[in-house]
Amino acid sequence: MNVCLPRAELIGLDWGTTSLRAYLLDESGRVLELRSRDWGIRQLPAGGFDAALDDVLAGWPACPVLASGMVGSRGGWREVPYVDLPAHLAAVAGALSFVDSAAGRRVHLVPGLRNTVTADVMRGEETEIFGALALQPVLAASSALLLPGTHSKWVTVRDGCVVDFATAMTGELYAALRHHTILAAGLPGEDPPSDQDAFRRGVQAARDSGAAGALSRLFSARALVLAGTLEALAVPDYLSGLLIGEELRSALAAGRIDRATPLQLIGNAALCRRYAAAASCFELGMALPPQAAAARGLWQIGRAAGLTSLSPHHAAGARP
Amino acid sequence: MNVCLPRAELIGLDWGTTSLRAYLLDESGRVLELRSRDWGIRQLPAGGFDAALDDVLAGWPACPVLASGMVGSRGGWREVPYVDLPAHLAAVAGALSFVDSAAGRRVHLVPGLRNTVTADVMRGEETEIFGALALQPVLAASSALLLPGTHSKWVTVRDGCVVDFATAMTGELYAALRHHTILAAGLPGEDPPSDQDAFRRGVQAARDSGAAGALSRLFSARALVLAGTLEALAVPDYLSGLLIGEELRSALAAGRIDRATPLQLIGNAALCRRYAAAASCFELGMALPPQAAAARGLWQIGRAAGLTSLSPHHAAGARP
Repeated sequence: MNVCLPRAELIGLDWGTTSLRAYLLDESGRVLELRSRDWGIRQLPAGGFDAALDDVLAGWPACPVLASGMVGSRGGWREVPYVDLPAHLAAVAGALSFVDSAAGRRVHLVPGLRNTVTADVMRGEETEIFGALALQPVLAASSALLLPGTHSKWVTVRDGCVVDFATAMTGELYAALRHHTILAAGLPGEDPPSDQDAFRRGVQAARDSGAAGALSRLFSARALVLAGTLEALAVPDYLSGLLIGEELRSALAAGRIDRATPLQLIGNAALCRRYAAAASCFELGMALPPQAAAARGLWQIGRAAGLTSLSPHHAAGARP
Repeated sequence: MNVCLPRAELIGLDWGTTSLRAYLLDESGRVLELRSRDWGIRQLPAGGFDAALDDVLAGWPACPVLASGMVGSRGGWREVPYVDLPAHLAAVAGALSFVDSAAGRRVHLVPGLRNTVTADVMRGEETEIFGALALQPVLAASSALLLPGTHSKWVTVRDGCVVDFATAMTGELYAALRHHTILAAGLPGEDPPSDQDAFRRGVQAARDSGAAGALSRLFSARALVLAGTLEALAVPDYLSGLLIGEELRSALAAGRIDRATPLQLIGNAALCRRYAAAASCFELGMALPPQAAAARGLWQIGRAAGLTSLSPHHAAGARP
């Protein structure tokens, strides 16, 4: 067991493409301190991963460090092989890898998940999922989860296992269309103030597109402006509604969700509220997200892997 | 009637967002000479529209000039109001506008079409459509036309009238995804040599996506590379197949086309061949495009508007 200051027990890193969040966790998994940096794996400081780690952990006790997210991808610090579905907490915790920093700090790395049926993958979301299941145990038996974002993940859970998931590139698609097509014409680079009516119109256009799908309505974001029935400044919200609406329409058409089962949102609160607003246009229920699912997931995985003093099997090995 | 060199009768300009094509047409509408410039309305030379016109017409006789395309849009030389559906040749020819250049040359401008039901619009394609109907009169009674491109147009013709159309932003969507998302990771800026197998796999993925639609499969263009079952260099063709396939899947789902009626392609030959290849994966028939539909359309509209000596009503007025 490493020497820790009183109560600090594990350091969790949520290290993605565009940001790094470090959590100092106590012996019950509560967040004692949170540090955020803009150092995603594509925008590291001079000195790379080592320098970023030294900075973000400066002054913190020498607890075990566990990192999830793109830091364990091919373009990250060290690639950790995916765990295939169906995947439960113990399988993920048993497949950690690690890398030793230049300063001699060992960083344990959480594997992502792979859906071999569709060749789909995730990295980082698995940690939020296991965090959410711990925070809301009622979800473990059978639930549908949605983690919206750059790459939204639609997840099916049965008996505590992730049994299926699919990625929708909604956030990235939005950014590409918003900034690099005719839909950006006449718009400032920064998004204007939110326009709820335009958002709802976009959602409804997607919903009403039926089996044809909302890609066939994409040009309406331009044509309605030319027709004078949509303000140019409302295009970003209309487009956002159209794409989020398409995500919901498609998930319903695919049978991934149904109207009887509420969907549990996980992730950024503001973005989740957007999805919940879109869901209401479909008369679909969506539960707002639990807080700090990533930190709780890091704690759950660290505990199951034997990195904490209360772990079921203390200090189990991790393969390099 | 202006003074023309022997046989030259009308100058047609196909003036779009990224290019300018000028046709010198004889008294039967044949192309005597063609000049191409990169001067679309977004990338004019110093001196703007006037300088571009003077250059492209240099040395040509003083025939009437008729221009179609984005030159008549809000961001063009002068905005020409749209003609609403259903639109026949005479309605378009009767709604020309004009602008006089600094050098005193009158340029007649073809209006675009507007679908008031969906607020959809086109500019330039109407001219290609009327050209195709003249080149292949069998299409006039009842046909489905597809003009693929940056903004693909799906068009329904009845009794020589355009009665319906819809825009799919396929080409622009492809470019935005190809160059501004994770799908571009590891790819050179220039497209690699064409990969027909990858293209077909993309088309099939879209076809098999059913009512869920191919946006739900977009991430497969990345995931299949990570899984080692798609070459990184094959991503552009896979993506192209996925998006063109989605256009076809969506048009079938919307009832815009059916398997019994062959679809007439109009436009760039290489791009039309791609669409025809995609259509074969759906067991759909597509007729390859007639040549020079834009030039023929300019001739048909110019003739109907009285700009040529053989016009039904010679030298009819055009509103400014």
